[in-house]
Order: sequence, then C-alpha cells, then structure tokens
Amino acid sequence: MAENVFVEQNTLRISGILEKQFPPRVSPAGVAHQDILLQHRSRQLEAGVMREARLVLTVHLAGELVGQARDFSPGDRIVVSGFLAPASYRESEKLVLHAQTLNRQD
Amino acid sequence: MAENVFVEQNTLRISGILEKQFPPRVSPAGVAHQDILLQHRSRQLEAGVMREARLVLTVHLAGELVGQARDFSPGDRIVVSGFLAPASYRESEKLVLHAQTLNRQD
Repeated sequence: MAENVFVEQNTLRISGILEKQFPPRVSPAGVAHQDILLQHRSRQLEAGVMREARLVLTVHLAGELVGQARDFSPGDRIVVSGFLAPASYRESEKLVLHAQTLNRQD
Repeated sequence: MAENVFVEQNTLRISGILEKQFPPRVSPAGVAHQDILLQHRSRQLEAGVMREARLVLTVHLAGELVGQARDFSPGDRIVVSGFLAPASYRESEKLVLHAQTLNRQD
C-alpha cells in the first residue's frame, strides 16, 4: 500500500503598510537577507461577527526580493505571500513571514 | 476622484497535526470558543534553496467550528484556513490563527 504522502500547506498572503526596512546583510554563502516590518489592519469575519485584525509582522526577504525591496520606502502599500516559520530556535514563539512574492498594492 | 479603497488581505492556509485541544468555553454573548495547537512541519523554497519550516501554532476556533472540532482528536491531520491576529493586547507579539475553515487532511 503506497504510504500516504501529505502535501503540507503553509501559505500566508497579507497586505499592509511597509513600516520599516532593516539594513540588508549578506550571508557567508553570499545570499542577501533583509527584514522588514509590515503593518496590517483589516476587518475579518469570525463566527458570523465582523472584528478587527491589527498586527505588525516581521517579513524576511532573501535573494532577489532584497533587490526588489530597494524600490519601496516606508509608507508604501505592499502585498506579501510566503510561509510562516519561527524567528529563531531561541525565539520560537515569534513567527516571521518568509516572503516568496513581494508586490506593491496599487 | 474616488478614494482608493484597498481590500486588505490576511489569509493563512496551513496543515499539520492536531497536538492539543484546550477546554472549550462560552463567552458572555453565548458564543463557543476554543484554542487548539497545530504542529506544522514542511519543506519550503526560499531564495532558490529548500529549507524546513517547523512550528507550533495556536489556532482559535469560534462558533460552529468548536462543535466541528469535537470530531477530531490529538494526532489527527488537519488543514486550517483563516486570518492572523495578535493573541491579545498584552501578548501582541504572539500571533494566533483565527480559523474560518477547519478540515481533516485525509
């Protein structure tokens, strides 16, 4: 019997205002990395009632996305999609969005 | 000129193993609420390199979803979609997935 292979899903798509861009850095392997802060605010439906969702999310950019982010500045509206992962082994409760796409929200 | 109305996006879809179900409770307005823990582990592509994403995520269920969760038990594979919000005003760094759909991953 073929062992059930589950395709794990972990996709977050979130929009908001670019609040802050931390300085980019380059890993020993020569890959560019940069963290940015995204300020999100929306109305969401939960158990039939509209409620507000408001958060500041750390978004991690790597590779080409770091170059792409140079075109943006704080205050711009952006839309990011990617996967969630812990900030680090020590800070496992803090979740970070690892971006796979980064676009302006016109 | 019509003011730009941005449709804010905040959608997370994530699969994993149901790790724990906390006791359900009922709000003063009579709405059922329950938190569960989801254990996620997947391989993700970032800047052209595959890496692991591994996290334990608090998922908040409200209304009908609490009844639906009664059919599940720890160890079951589930897929949840919903929106991210801070756990509370005090714990604003801790993010919780507010479920809008909850299904078994067969």
